[in-house]
Amino acid sequence: MVKKVYGVGVGVGDKKLLTLKALEILKKVDKIFIPISKEGKKSIAYEIIKDYVDGKDIEELLFPMIKDKEELKKYWENALEKVLKEDGEVALITIGDPTLYSTFSYLWKLLNEKGIKVEVVNGISSIFASAAALNIPLVEGDEKLCILPQGKDLEKYVDEFDTIIVMKTKNLKEKLDKIKDKDNYIVGLVRRATFEDEKVAIGRLDELDFDEFNDYLSLAIIKRVKE
Amino acid sequence: MVKKVYGVGVGVGDKKLLTLKALEILKKVDKIFIPISKEGKKSIAYEIIKDYVDGKDIEELLFPMIKDKEELKKYWENALEKVLKEDGEVALITIGDPTLYSTFSYLWKLLNEKGIKVEVVNGISSIFASAAALNIPLVEGDEKLCILPQGKDLEKYVDEFDTIIVMKTKNLKEKLDKIKDKDNYIVGLVRRATFEDEKVAIGRLDELDFDEFNDYLSLAIIKRVKE
Repeated sequence: MVKKVYGVGVGVGDKKLLTLKALEILKKVDKIFIPISKEGKKSIAYEIIKDYVDGKDIEELLFPMIKDKEELKKYWENALEKVLKEDGEVALITIGDPTLYSTFSYLWKLLNEKGIKVEVVNGISSIFASAAALNIPLVEGDEKLCILPQGKDLEKYVDEFDTIIVMKTKNLKEKLDKIKDKDNYIVGLVRRATFEDEKVAIGRLDELDFDEFNDYLSLAIIKRVKE
Repeated sequence: MVKKVYGVGVGVGDKKLLTLKALEILKKVDKIFIPISKEGKKSIAYEIIKDYVDGKDIEELLFPMIKDKEELKKYWENALEKVLKEDGEVALITIGDPTLYSTFSYLWKLLNEKGIKVEVVNGISSIFASAAALNIPLVEGDEKLCILPQGKDLEKYVDEFDTIIVMKTKNLKEKLDKIKDKDNYIVGLVRRATFEDEKVAIGRLDELDFDEFNDYLSLAIIKRVKE
């Protein structure tokens, strides 16, 4: 039976944003599990670490991007089974940080239920890498921030929070279109922060072109313009 | 005049949570500025990196923890002056990530206004390190998260968000006491995540002992109990 499972955040596109600890763990574990969303499709997380883990025992785990929870559960159970049957210490890698909307969180819960030792190794999240790419802070002083996946309840909160992050959607334009008085907001759009094909735009909401920001790794940072 | 300023996030207490990039930048810059909150007081950020930067040119910048903005502005202007008069590339280090409630953000703005080249190097934030220490994800699936500094508007949002982080206060107990129906929430308390004197507690809000969580580097993660 597996002795310990590390949930390792490998950060965003820039390989140098890996932490010293993540690198140490990836080099010492007996096996690295990498998430893929479709058979034959490349794992983004693996692309980030592959130069560091030459010769390692690597195994793919299939986590398709489907919404049906019962259907998904089969894939988690299947992944769990593969992980449990290992002998030593293993790592499962995930982009960003393992605590924020991560593929790892479902498996994490199942491992905890089984009493398996789990250690999360934090990684750089796209929310921070995106703010850095835009050259703006997310929040300062006593400002409030919220993260609304798929822009859920955006109209309700857009005037109550200083900074709003909309992520986990391929359609930022449609989500942000619901905001009224578009002139009151400065919006930063970031696609694939720190990857080679990173793209950023910033400006008043009504002046932005969303065309190149329709990727699952795109996000929007919305700030109310203050007087 | 200074050529480039790096705002480097050095993460939390564990020195190994530094990124490869942060380490590379700290080794190559001509000078490292370190924030202190009081003359003669140790810089937490410097404690994290000092083993890696032996022999480097280090200079302290005083950023006192006061609320008067006019008074604070003098310290920022003074820091700016010191940074500007350097010749080459310099780094200013900050705990956590430079985009989230960071000491760096004020200087960042002034540097941008002066047209000085700034590059932010992301670091591991205490919000992620705390969730890892508690062995729980912050958010999964389509859950909404908010960060309320000093617990601002906590009563209003506590039932609207799946996860709420209260930080930047020395008095978590007083802030969380405002929540009604305390039995409906699981709360994780973390003091100084990943530092040697890290302390964690998790449980129903009405059962928690806040005694050891009254430090400025303590935070609370509040999750509504779901049926």
